[in-house]
Amino acid sequence: MGNKLLLDQGSGGLASHRLVADVFLRHLANPVLARMDDAALINPKGPLAVSTDSFTVDPIFFPGGDIGCLAVHGTVNDVAMLGAKPLYLTCGFILEEGFDLDDLERIVASMARAAKKAGVRVIAGDTKVVGRGAADKIFINTTGIGEVVSSRPPSGHRARPGDAVIVSGTLGDHGLTILSHRQGLSFEAPVQSDCASLNRLTLKLMQRLERVHVLRDPTRGGLATTLNEIAQQSGVGIHLEEPAIPVKPVVASGCEVLGLDPLYLANEGKLICILPGKLADQALAVMRRDPLGRDACVIGTVTAENPGKVVLRTGLGGRRLLGMLEGEQLPRIC
Amino acid sequence: MGNKLLLDQGSGGLASHRLVADVFLRHLANPVLARMDDAALINPKGPLAVSTDSFTVDPIFFPGGDIGCLAVHGTVNDVAMLGAKPLYLTCGFILEEGFDLDDLERIVASMARAAKKAGVRVIAGDTKVVGRGAADKIFINTTGIGEVVSSRPPSGHRARPGDAVIVSGTLGDHGLTILSHRQGLSFEAPVQSDCASLNRLTLKLMQRLERVHVLRDPTRGGLATTLNEIAQQSGVGIHLEEPAIPVKPVVASGCEVLGLDPLYLANEGKLICILPGKLADQALAVMRRDPLGRDACVIGTVTAENPGKVVLRTGLGGRRLLGMLEGEQLPRIC
Repeated sequence: MGNKLLLDQGSGGLASHRLVADVFLRHLANPVLARMDDAALINPKGPLAVSTDSFTVDPIFFPGGDIGCLAVHGTVNDVAMLGAKPLYLTCGFILEEGFDLDDLERIVASMARAAKKAGVRVIAGDTKVVGRGAADKIFINTTGIGEVVSSRPPSGHRARPGDAVIVSGTLGDHGLTILSHRQGLSFEAPVQSDCASLNRLTLKLMQRLERVHVLRDPTRGGLATTLNEIAQQSGVGIHLEEPAIPVKPVVASGCEVLGLDPLYLANEGKLICILPGKLADQALAVMRRDPLGRDACVIGTVTAENPGKVVLRTGLGGRRLLGMLEGEQLPRIC
Repeated sequence: MGNKLLLDQGSGGLASHRLVADVFLRHLANPVLARMDDAALINPKGPLAVSTDSFTVDPIFFPGGDIGCLAVHGTVNDVAMLGAKPLYLTCGFILEEGFDLDDLERIVASMARAAKKAGVRVIAGDTKVVGRGAADKIFINTTGIGEVVSSRPPSGHRARPGDAVIVSGTLGDHGLTILSHRQGLSFEAPVQSDCASLNRLTLKLMQRLERVHVLRDPTRGGLATTLNEIAQQSGVGIHLEEPAIPVKPVVASGCEVLGLDPLYLANEGKLICILPGKLADQALAVMRRDPLGRDACVIGTVTAENPGKVVLRTGLGGRRLLGMLEGEQLPRIC
């Protein structure tokens, strides 16, 4: 049973207005959104960070989250990685005719909770409905806007030899959760997505440590791909110590079963922080005081050697190049 | 033949980076986008107008445009309707595995031309690839940011009794083009989408006529639905003179064939301007000097009677209520 979405609810007419009022405005209401003009009017200060992301994750509900809160966390985090304070989100929904309206409401309510927790407001939205089979249930685009709080925002271009490479916690949780859930696998211990908004953690880092060089969240493509991007943008090498890289035992064994490498799996609530080596302890102290940075640790260093490359020193002392994610097909992970 | 999109190109790994470099950056490049951090850094002035819109139009190529330029025009126009100067766009692509890469390139090139013409820069983007059958070819979300140039931005809440209601040109062109193209119909005269960016026209209006009360582009749901929204937001009545409403003969006859009402069809390059009646001639003069406002005319007035309603006086002198679009199924018109 349950109410199903009709094509008409995307027509822009009366049925659309009712859907917007009943579902979207009810959960996401705020004075800016409530004006319902063609565009929202905001008055932020100073330079801004802007990021956009579309979410097509399958399944749409998974242990630890759903496509709604993920769409908030993902974009909040991208804005936060510029050392900015995320303030505003826009949301674009593409919905399939026949989609369950109770599921839609559950997703929108989850977005509202995630937005409230992250301190951002949804200021503009759009809903399109396409015929059965023209989309898979629900896709969400979010665009985030935040105020830049630092005079020198962190950037993938700013890694320098001698910098320490820190991660805020264990790797691969989100990716393994989605892939194992999709395949109907269960493990001895529960595994769940790490999806969370990191903006309070990044703000603390920026306030206490002016000299953060790079902040980046290793989502699609995982740690290895993100570090390759940074190595190339900054023209530096990155050397990692494999034994130092935190991976939950259940994720490590799940990866073995599925033939996956946790260093290439998506994370949705973790960040990479690169800053001068002598500040590493201070950064770790800040991160470990935050629940989302409890397992933070130094995993490597930035080098002048091997510019553009990421080199992993394994537990046995061998070295291997970690390239970007290549040839694997892990669609709809976020 | 032709190159087809692979799932791998949405993985976030090496294949994704190549796609971004080969297609997106090549056409849309600018210094902000080129930094390729998690978020873009911009430094706009003063209050901002922000709007988001997803585009799912079917067919993706149609007479007068394509989903790419439409995604630029649509969001540029929404920002412009706040009397703002659109400056920045973000783009989120959701692509179906197997989508033709030549078509993708044609669409991105069309976006680039439309953005250049409108004077906006694409500052951030995202690409997701979903499996065959999980989306229909290509969906595009654009979010636009513009600087508000007026101390009292136009708003759907500001229509006042005595105001004139002006449209910038003929109605129904886009909607009829899409629907007839989809059904394989052709008419004696060519019909094509009016899709265009109206921001230069709105800027002229705002500069010459401080007292513009409402600007709104009548897209999905058409003129009738948009005027109902304004009547409700402002708590006023809107009286229209049917003979004054401009509709191209080919659109009028096409609508008769298909059983459609041009007042409910989507427009993608037209605006409604509502302002004090005594300024109507001045506004018409400004609009008619612009190629996109050549056919501008006054179509009605704002009244204190019938608050929240739109009343149409027909050519025969009768009156009827024009409600919002209701019960019709015209999906994927934009």
